[in-house]
Amino acid sequence: MTNSTDNNLQLSIVNSQLSVCVVGVGLIGGSFALALKNKKLASHIIGVCNREETKQKVLQLNLVDEVLPLEEAVKKADLIYVAIPVDATIPIMQQIMDLVNDKQIVVDAGSTKFALCEALENHANRKRFVATHPMWGTEYSGPEAAVQNAFAGRACVICEKEKSDATAVEIVENIYKELGMHLVYMNAHDHDMHAAYVSHISHITSFALANTVLEKEKEEDAIFELAGGGFESTVRLAKSNPAMWAPIFMQNKENVLDVLNEHISQLRKFKSALEKENLEFLNELMEKANKIRKIIK
Amino acid sequence: MTNSTDNNLQLSIVNSQLSVCVVGVGLIGGSFALALKNKKLASHIIGVCNREETKQKVLQLNLVDEVLPLEEAVKKADLIYVAIPVDATIPIMQQIMDLVNDKQIVVDAGSTKFALCEALENHANRKRFVATHPMWGTEYSGPEAAVQNAFAGRACVICEKEKSDATAVEIVENIYKELGMHLVYMNAHDHDMHAAYVSHISHITSFALANTVLEKEKEEDAIFELAGGGFESTVRLAKSNPAMWAPIFMQNKENVLDVLNEHISQLRKFKSALEKENLEFLNELMEKANKIRKIIK
Repeated sequence: MTNSTDNNLQLSIVNSQLSVCVVGVGLIGGSFALALKNKKLASHIIGVCNREETKQKVLQLNLVDEVLPLEEAVKKADLIYVAIPVDATIPIMQQIMDLVNDKQIVVDAGSTKFALCEALENHANRKRFVATHPMWGTEYSGPEAAVQNAFAGRACVICEKEKSDATAVEIVENIYKELGMHLVYMNAHDHDMHAAYVSHISHITSFALANTVLEKEKEEDAIFELAGGGFESTVRLAKSNPAMWAPIFMQNKENVLDVLNEHISQLRKFKSALEKENLEFLNELMEKANKIRKIIK
Repeated sequence: MTNSTDNNLQLSIVNSQLSVCVVGVGLIGGSFALALKNKKLASHIIGVCNREETKQKVLQLNLVDEVLPLEEAVKKADLIYVAIPVDATIPIMQQIMDLVNDKQIVVDAGSTKFALCEALENHANRKRFVATHPMWGTEYSGPEAAVQNAFAGRACVICEKEKSDATAVEIVENIYKELGMHLVYMNAHDHDMHAAYVSHISHITSFALANTVLEKEKEEDAIFELAGGGFESTVRLAKSNPAMWAPIFMQNKENVLDVLNEHISQLRKFKSALEKENLEFLNELMEKANKIRKIIK
């Protein structure tokens, strides 16, 4: 299965001779670039940015070695890492996949996987593509949001491993492992369903909680003065970038709606318990929720 | 207004000669006791615990100097600090208020203020009572949950200041200020309304989110493996103790239901935007939520 080209690439990684192109040098792409540099996994990192001010910023922040237009950057890279909003990912990935040769590896880091995998399913270069989702993020975005050691200790999902070249997968796996991630394998459909549960719904509840409080609490000073750690932690995701999250919710619409309906129904149970002053039911709901202790440390 | 007794008590604080009784040596009471010791604000701390195993624990953890039955403890203390579930607070506070003389100060730390202030409104010793709510907490409970430096940087609400003895208030204010808190004054009704917005609703959404995910995600391993920081922060309050929170929700039922109804309506807007694939509305909802950035750092 492994050809000599792939072996050379594997060797390049060992010798840190890998040339990497990061398309979208923001929260995820920028943190990936920092981690590659930190672990000495790449000899050269090229950034691709769509806005002039971002180009300046990523160079100032020393996230990449140079910034080039997409086509030029792709040509110079052994590995192309795409970390842009998921609606932009599909057309850009199609463009990149048309450009790459049978030595290059294309990786995406998007929060949805089904639509992209489907879009690339019959591409002549499908084997050069490795679909991944490092399960890490913060509520911030853009190059300034990139941080050192971002992915360590987190899960990275790899989808449809069997449709990618085995050595390409191995190279990508080794990079993520070097960054301290543990790997989880699933098909794109299952990924999107699980991501709706453990990530997308948290963002919707947080956005909705912020709107609830902003709607009800007319005295912003009171929020500012009184809010403790509990409020901050449940509402912090409401600072997240709509340009990133709207396409995620849209692409994962069915799963997100499914979980959202369940969530509204769970909130209605609390409402009913309170309205009826049913202390037993209220306690039952909370004791059930306490079971999350066994799952989340 | 200030009498010589209060002056002596004020002097006791300056000289760290204050004897303090903490009723309920758990998350809040235990952290308060630790903070008093750390800041050398008390010469002697007596704990009151209702369970035998807790008595042993609070002594082992060195949170208090001795444990005594309520009546005995109250008699030995200059200041009595009550930090127990809010349903137990009302009868225990009535008992304590019947015991205290006109030199002692009684403080409660409960998350609801209206029902308690109303219950004590006509008590002969009303002036000895200072109603407070230090806006700090974690999802843990019991003596082991007590931590050093818990209250620093947080707000402490003082309610109905005008109904308490002026010097008693001053002493309590000085203690909280020494612990690093900033003071906010409001009536009990307003407190309960604001607390519903900035604290109680966060707990309900978190409990409901845990139940949503536990209901929908049949593969607990998937939650365990995939959950990132976003999920953890929005769901962590779901580990909170029902024995503490059920009475809070019940006592603050009207305000909590009011905010909960608004929250369900805000979630329905996201649902509608998704169902109709109305990207403009979805973005509008998230951009509105982003305004929380200005309020929460």
